[in-house]
Amino acid sequence: MTMPLPPGSTIGILGGGQLGRMLALAAARLGLKSAIYSDVPGPAFDVVARSVTGAYEDTGAISAFARSVDVVTYEFENVPLAAAAAAENEAPVRPGAKALAVSQDRFDEKSFLRALSLPVAPFALVESEAHFAGAIAACGERAILKTRRLGYDGKGQARISKATELAGAFDAIKRAPSVLEGFINFEYEVSVLVVRGLNGEKRFYDCPLNTHKSGILDTSTVPSPLPPHHVARAREIGATIADALGYVGLLAVEMFYMGEGSTEPLVVNEMAPRVHNSGHWTMDACLCSQFENHVRAVAGWPLGPTERHSDVVMTNLIGDDVHAWRELSAEHGTALHLYGKAEARPGRKMGHVNRIRARG
Amino acid sequence: MTMPLPPGSTIGILGGGQLGRMLALAAARLGLKSAIYSDVPGPAFDVVARSVTGAYEDTGAISAFARSVDVVTYEFENVPLAAAAAAENEAPVRPGAKALAVSQDRFDEKSFLRALSLPVAPFALVESEAHFAGAIAACGERAILKTRRLGYDGKGQARISKATELAGAFDAIKRAPSVLEGFINFEYEVSVLVVRGLNGEKRFYDCPLNTHKSGILDTSTVPSPLPPHHVARAREIGATIADALGYVGLLAVEMFYMGEGSTEPLVVNEMAPRVHNSGHWTMDACLCSQFENHVRAVAGWPLGPTERHSDVVMTNLIGDDVHAWRELSAEHGTALHLYGKAEARPGRKMGHVNRIRARG
Repeated sequence: MTMPLPPGSTIGILGGGQLGRMLALAAARLGLKSAIYSDVPGPAFDVVARSVTGAYEDTGAISAFARSVDVVTYEFENVPLAAAAAAENEAPVRPGAKALAVSQDRFDEKSFLRALSLPVAPFALVESEAHFAGAIAACGERAILKTRRLGYDGKGQARISKATELAGAFDAIKRAPSVLEGFINFEYEVSVLVVRGLNGEKRFYDCPLNTHKSGILDTSTVPSPLPPHHVARAREIGATIADALGYVGLLAVEMFYMGEGSTEPLVVNEMAPRVHNSGHWTMDACLCSQFENHVRAVAGWPLGPTERHSDVVMTNLIGDDVHAWRELSAEHGTALHLYGKAEARPGRKMGHVNRIRARG
Repeated sequence: MTMPLPPGSTIGILGGGQLGRMLALAAARLGLKSAIYSDVPGPAFDVVARSVTGAYEDTGAISAFARSVDVVTYEFENVPLAAAAAAENEAPVRPGAKALAVSQDRFDEKSFLRALSLPVAPFALVESEAHFAGAIAACGERAILKTRRLGYDGKGQARISKATELAGAFDAIKRAPSVLEGFINFEYEVSVLVVRGLNGEKRFYDCPLNTHKSGILDTSTVPSPLPPHHVARAREIGATIADALGYVGLLAVEMFYMGEGSTEPLVVNEMAPRVHNSGHWTMDACLCSQFENHVRAVAGWPLGPTERHSDVVMTNLIGDDVHAWRELSAEHGTALHLYGKAEARPGRKMGHVNRIRARG
């Protein structure tokens, strides 16, 4: 049994974006310090006393950073495995390298899920023209081609509706090693937000209903319409993944809900080994946010409560949306969160609002 | 009409303690940066990218600090007036110097309240033996002698129950210029937490019931048993003070409740021109905390909602209390806040817990 890190300890966070920022703010509530390591200065740098700018490939710098903190965590799943390994020589890395390895590569992730007998859409590797026919046979003609690595928010994706479009789609994503995924005719998307402690205890937030705009999360609504027995199944899937990874921290699993009559009502879309945009509603509708619970887990602390005290709709502020900050800040029942990014580029996540109402 | 400071602006905070820390954390939610100026490094230094250590008497350093930020605020009422004046030459100081001047001196504060026709306990100046007889005549024999300046948390105070004890009490507080206050036989203490915006709008949090241990705030409970018509009167008193000071920010006013049958049901004890310990419950029971509302006000933003979504008991963690952090962090329905102070000295405010339950 590992002892919890005492107050005053330092959490080392790889990544300087808004997720790292909100992790650091949550750590501060608990009397824990945070230090940030990032390849470029970012929003997290403003809320900590110590930030380091360095390449994620610079294992020497990563080692030195890890040596200067008490535990290492990360805000994004594309931390190079060599960096995670270098850090792990100096301090615990939580969640561990296995979660990173699996979630960095869509093909490995889907293979991992399938090996756990979890429901996934049909998928097939596409690394050259030689794979086209087999991939279409496995997935059907209505499908989405996605790069194996580094895609997010709809980037590195191309849809097809006929077998003959696959060649063009492959060109469109620059012939990067890819996965073809069969099109899923789902009713809606939900996500499971599970936090797993150092002792294996698991707690679940309510499953939000997620909607997207242009491939980017737009809203997360709690409660979702997901029927209770399917909520139980969704949590079971999340728990299976977290346990299989020996996971420590907050894990998000996006799932498609196929409808009441479906033989397989929930199909896993993808997982994120980190705090997740679809969990931002917890900041204002729960006593303990996903960020605080992630910090508690990686620090070896008891997990915090995951119940919601209010119903809530979280809406992302993307690009120019943020220019409405003044009106949004005057809205009743609305909590405004801004990430401190200077430039509102199109598609950039600038903040979010949580619109709260009493529990129904 | 002054424009609100846009996101990305910097709030300069005088004072590096837990109040400054929680102000900086609240500012970060809104995409505002904070910079800290303090005579010694403190808990607030850990949550900002820029902190300055310097004497509050060093008006040159204060000027330079004020020049580097967009607005100046403070976490304690004993900011030297010369420092406030130096800062005001470079940036707006909110709340203004008048609030500081009045609240730094118990005699001036009580005189100010009396001039507003607000109810205060009988009081009299005690600066030498020559004042003893008149002070006893004004206040009675059961009274408390308090230093005019720099007392807090029960420090610089001595109780008497007979006229002959006044000389000893005056010696006990080192013959500092003092105020004798007549003993008040109150039922309980409440506080008014009012936030006043740059445009004069005022919003009120619920009045907490406050209890003390050894002169230090122990608990704040919301809702308090204060009857609704007395809540209205308490708010009226808070509003009168805030308006008279042209106040911008969160103002706390401690009041004694004298009981239903009393001709003067509420008597003002003291005011604090800053966020206040008896408002820490707002962090977990309201969508917008006292810290965020103070930041909104000083930044010229619209005020945030002050309604509570939950009932709550706030309990301070003083000195060794903090060593129970592990058990407290595992308590259901409890939010733990630690200030990141290294040493748990007796009487030192180390953190607090908010114990939440659904609104009754």
